[in-house]
Amino acid sequence: MNGPRFVISASEASSMAQQSNLSPLQLLPTLVPSAKDLARVPISNFPVGAVGLASDGRIFLGVNLEFTGVPLHHSVHAEQFLLTNLAVHGAPRLLALAVSAAPCGHCRQFFQELRNAADLQIFITSDQDQGKDDKPINYKPLISFLPNPFGPFDLLNEQTPLLLEPHNNGLQLQIQTLPSSKNPIMCNGYSKSREKGETLEIAALEAANESHAPYSGCPSGVALMDCEGEIYKGFYIESAAYNPSLGPVQAALVAYMAAGGGGFERIVAGVLVEREGAAVRQEDAARLFFKLISPKCEVRVLHCVLGSNGVYKA
Amino acid sequence: MNGPRFVISASEASSMAQQSNLSPLQLLPTLVPSAKDLARVPISNFPVGAVGLASDGRIFLGVNLEFTGVPLHHSVHAEQFLLTNLAVHGAPRLLALAVSAAPCGHCRQFFQELRNAADLQIFITSDQDQGKDDKPINYKPLISFLPNPFGPFDLLNEQTPLLLEPHNNGLQLQIQTLPSSKNPIMCNGYSKSREKGETLEIAALEAANESHAPYSGCPSGVALMDCEGEIYKGFYIESAAYNPSLGPVQAALVAYMAAGGGGFERIVAGVLVEREGAAVRQEDAARLFFKLISPKCEVRVLHCVLGSNGVYKA
Ligand SMILES: [Zn+2]
Ligand SMILES: [Zn+2]
Repeated sequence: MNGPRFVISASEASSMAQQSNLSPLQLLPTLVPSAKDLARVPISNFPVGAVGLASDGRIFLGVNLEFTGVPLHHSVHAEQFLLTNLAVHGAPRLLALAVSAAPCGHCRQFFQELRNAADLQIFITSDQDQGKDDKPINYKPLISFLPNPFGPFDLLNEQTPLLLEPHNNGLQLQIQTLPSSKNPIMCNGYSKSREKGETLEIAALEAANESHAPYSGCPSGVALMDCEGEIYKGFYIESAAYNPSLGPVQAALVAYMAAGGGGFERIVAGVLVEREGAAVRQEDAARLFFKLISPKCEVRVLHCVLGSNGVYKA
Repeated sequence: MNGPRFVISASEASSMAQQSNLSPLQLLPTLVPSAKDLARVPISNFPVGAVGLASDGRIFLGVNLEFTGVPLHHSVHAEQFLLTNLAVHGAPRLLALAVSAAPCGHCRQFFQELRNAADLQIFITSDQDQGKDDKPINYKPLISFLPNPFGPFDLLNEQTPLLLEPHNNGLQLQIQTLPSSKNPIMCNGYSKSREKGETLEIAALEAANESHAPYSGCPSGVALMDCEGEIYKGFYIESAAYNPSLGPVQAALVAYMAAGGGGFERIVAGVLVEREGAAVRQEDAARLFFKLISPKCEVRVLHCVLGSNGVYKA
């Protein structure tokens, strides 16, 4: 991994805490300033950094992203970046985060997609700045930032997988849609596709199968390739409140940045996988957005249709 | 005005309250069920109705809108519809609202664009349903739904006009961009443009000049014409938190519906006015969205450039 660090391993996080004689929750705020430096905010010049502790001991960073030339809903907030960073790295649970500014309502809503959202512990470091060094680091639960929330269980039953829980949306590719082989690949997981050699299409399919889209039933995923042939993938994350949903291109950009990716113009190809005729259809917005961030990027869209066995196939 | 009622005059609101022996704040929840019936929710089938009392005595309705075939951020929530309805009708202040479901975080954030947002009184009628008839109607202030908010004054000074306060963004049209006359029209207000005969271009310009876009400095406005030649206009409403911003086409659709407009396919022409080279550029998204809601709609975009006198001109 080159470039800035967006994921810190559990062992490294543990030794960082020990060396500075801090608990993990005390460590998070100390990492916020360097997170802020990684924000890409050409419109607001208002960088935000968020640093979160996962239940597996890893520490994840999030920053805000803004994109000149399109409406503001393409923006990614630091808290959304953080949560997407956990999601694309398979982290099981977010326990706590420190963030440099008061989370906006949009982000407080986005966090509702987590099981036990109410208990997520949040500390705003700007509050600390005001109180200087001797102010205690008081985390408060999300429920105190968004009391009486509208959330997943206003629309879903309790068995439905939430964000960071395993998803398999049952989308499949037929091999004729792929460039280099003739047998059908049923690639719903990482291992199988890696055996066959991961192509961009398969990566996008894998992402689509992990997509959290229980409200519309329209999962989607994006895989990007940079000019060195590296592949990055991200999936659409839907919110019970609809508008705070995070698009699949944005999620793939989070994966790209988290892996140390540089300027977005280094992205040379992108594949979107979604359902044919989806009520929540990403294609047009994704094409526009790719064209904006990397004008020479080659974009392909695979539409999965419902096969005879009830599985969506492209 | 034909079709459903989205604006109730102060005198009518007053007599409705008197006839049913209710205070205005008691009247609002009784209007929520009929508001819900006006929602257009092809994706969620989860209609939401919001009914608000303005300081001038008028009552405004809001409903949620969803659009099949595009990402969910094109959706309009009932609370956003309500606030946009006040804005396009020049209401001075929103005092209170009753709404059928707990407002999501996105909407709690959108309300921050109001001066004195903290005091906005909110009552959730679904709470009442649970408690049946004898439960008191308890409004609670917005600050209790979104404590410790991120808001306009994290980014602006206190003199900047907020939503529902007068705006004039200083955009102008040169007459050569208009179809039917030769003299320059400096049409920053309603009266002057009405003297010349309101065209769709002028209506869109007027809307752009009322746009609330203090964070990006990229105001925009849209005017629509239906198949009977009626004109409806709405303006871009920006949020301090960026993503909850409401696009200019959405705002114009609120105006269209509030005036009793029917299916969106009845819209035959649309004009967008925005700044040339705007960092927050609406054009591409607006064209896509127009094509979706009314495929035969003729769409024009006027880009205003900064004139020699420091005023943006198209
Ligand atoms: Zn946010
Ligand atoms: Zn909402």
